[in-house]
Amino acid sequence: MVIAKARAVDGPDKSFREAEIERRVPGHEIAGFVTEIGSEVTKYKAGDRVGVGCMVGSCGECKNCRDGEEQYCLEGNIPTYAGVDKYGELTQGGYSTHIVVEEDFVLKIPDNIELDAAAPLLCAGITTYSPLNHWNAGPGKKVAVVGMGGLGHMAVKIAHAMGAEVTVLSRTLNKKEDGLEFGAEAYHATSDPETFEKLAGTFDLIINTVSAKIDISAYLSLLTLDGAMVNVGAPAEPLEVNVFSLIGHRRSFAGSLIGGIRETQEMLDFCGEHGIVPSIEVISADYIDEAYERVLGSDVKYRFVIDTSTI
Amino acid sequence: MVIAKARAVDGPDKSFREAEIERRVPGHEIAGFVTEIGSEVTKYKAGDRVGVGCMVGSCGECKNCRDGEEQYCLEGNIPTYAGVDKYGELTQGGYSTHIVVEEDFVLKIPDNIELDAAAPLLCAGITTYSPLNHWNAGPGKKVAVVGMGGLGHMAVKIAHAMGAEVTVLSRTLNKKEDGLEFGAEAYHATSDPETFEKLAGTFDLIINTVSAKIDISAYLSLLTLDGAMVNVGAPAEPLEVNVFSLIGHRRSFAGSLIGGIRETQEMLDFCGEHGIVPSIEVISADYIDEAYERVLGSDVKYRFVIDTSTI
Repeated sequence: MVIAKARAVDGPDKSFREAEIERRVPGHEIAGFVTEIGSEVTKYKAGDRVGVGCMVGSCGECKNCRDGEEQYCLEGNIPTYAGVDKYGELTQGGYSTHIVVEEDFVLKIPDNIELDAAAPLLCAGITTYSPLNHWNAGPGKKVAVVGMGGLGHMAVKIAHAMGAEVTVLSRTLNKKEDGLEFGAEAYHATSDPETFEKLAGTFDLIINTVSAKIDISAYLSLLTLDGAMVNVGAPAEPLEVNVFSLIGHRRSFAGSLIGGIRETQEMLDFCGEHGIVPSIEVISADYIDEAYERVLGSDVKYRFVIDTSTI
Repeated sequence: MVIAKARAVDGPDKSFREAEIERRVPGHEIAGFVTEIGSEVTKYKAGDRVGVGCMVGSCGECKNCRDGEEQYCLEGNIPTYAGVDKYGELTQGGYSTHIVVEEDFVLKIPDNIELDAAAPLLCAGITTYSPLNHWNAGPGKKVAVVGMGGLGHMAVKIAHAMGAEVTVLSRTLNKKEDGLEFGAEAYHATSDPETFEKLAGTFDLIINTVSAKIDISAYLSLLTLDGAMVNVGAPAEPLEVNVFSLIGHRRSFAGSLIGGIRETQEMLDFCGEHGIVPSIEVISADYIDEAYERVLGSDVKYRFVIDTSTI
């Protein structure tokens, strides 16, 4: 949720470690300009409009890294903040004016996407694009999105742009108007038990953006033959799955974690082509505490973005 | 688990209903000879070696039936026993000398498979073949089979014949010798916690034949990126799934139910080509009670088959 000035370097240098020690801040949806590059950087130059997402590194050598799925690095990817980098230091996030990142973990932002709108694509965008892409959302497919928050509203926009028929399943109908505007064809309240009866066996794919403990088996019953329900959020406690709801129609309950760097660039380009941007509220740094309270109270449509020039 | 004389008819006739009323018996792994056919039967003739599995009917009109996935009939398939047929009567199983079945739910048994060995293929065979087939078990794939009972031992033989590298995960090493003989390359005891450490992130596919409540999340951790764990048995109580174990490597927890008629024939032909038969112990009808006790005590290698000529 940060607009930062990004600085791409080609590898270990003194400034990387110094930056780490000086700043211990969160933020993993970062957009800004390249201000300086390391001597071996070839992909970017000063002035480029770039982004940094949830990862700033990975081993680069394991099978998953070689396949371009760095998020699933077998050594563990290096998260943009509160992770441990290759120098053994805590990584620092994007609530800052600058960030130093290796070029392989820097993304190019399409010209027609403003920096403030680009930032949330780096996590909320790719987290929903990746499973929609992997499970082939597209024309002829019925996709349900559970939850209409920062992730959910992006899932609706992206799935719609992919050509799928999108339904929102939200606790209440409070955000129905927004959901339909974002591209959903239907919007149902999950607090109404009739929703589950009416929609039984309907969806090819359900993207669950809710991290709370919900009745997974009830949602699984909404899937068609070979349908998949994919969690992009993870509740701390285990979820109970009634296996009959899987066996009955060869359904899958799956999970997905952000996306690889190649796929993140693909997502950004896709959003550029289709004119997809998140719905955001830009705030200044001194509003962060209040914004945080509003996030806890579900009072955000749909992502706060911090203007880091106010830091 | 029954060898019966099968009689295929083409649709509702008097004998079907009479048969239903006279016999209320279980049994859904049925092999025998056609003794008589209805006037519109075209696929079979008296004397043919045939089998009947877990279903004797379905609506034939829903999307899943039209796609040849009658087991997932949206109206519900008609189970071979203890189901309700289209005449509103309880269906009767194969613990009998004859069974009357519509030709579309009758399978041809390959010439090189004996009737007694063919019978368990109609449930244990197709229940394991179908997910192995659907999730692309084959050369280069590492497949684990959880449980070494009637279903598990078939999963090992079939997955091995498909070209996959097979590992058995069983509570103890009691049946290790058999497992290796059936085609497994490795056999591990799940009672040993080291098994889960050693094999973390190893398998593309896990077929879980155990219907008891097991620690699903521990098994999910054995899957590689995009791996799937497929339950073919369903415990009565829900299973707890730690969603992190799904998200971490885009894993799936899925279920599978027997197979369609077309796929069941494909499985029989595959077993004929590869000389795959279950390991069985043929018993006479008066041994059924004792066999049942032995099944409860896990004292069966690996399927009892009743010689119905002794009924």
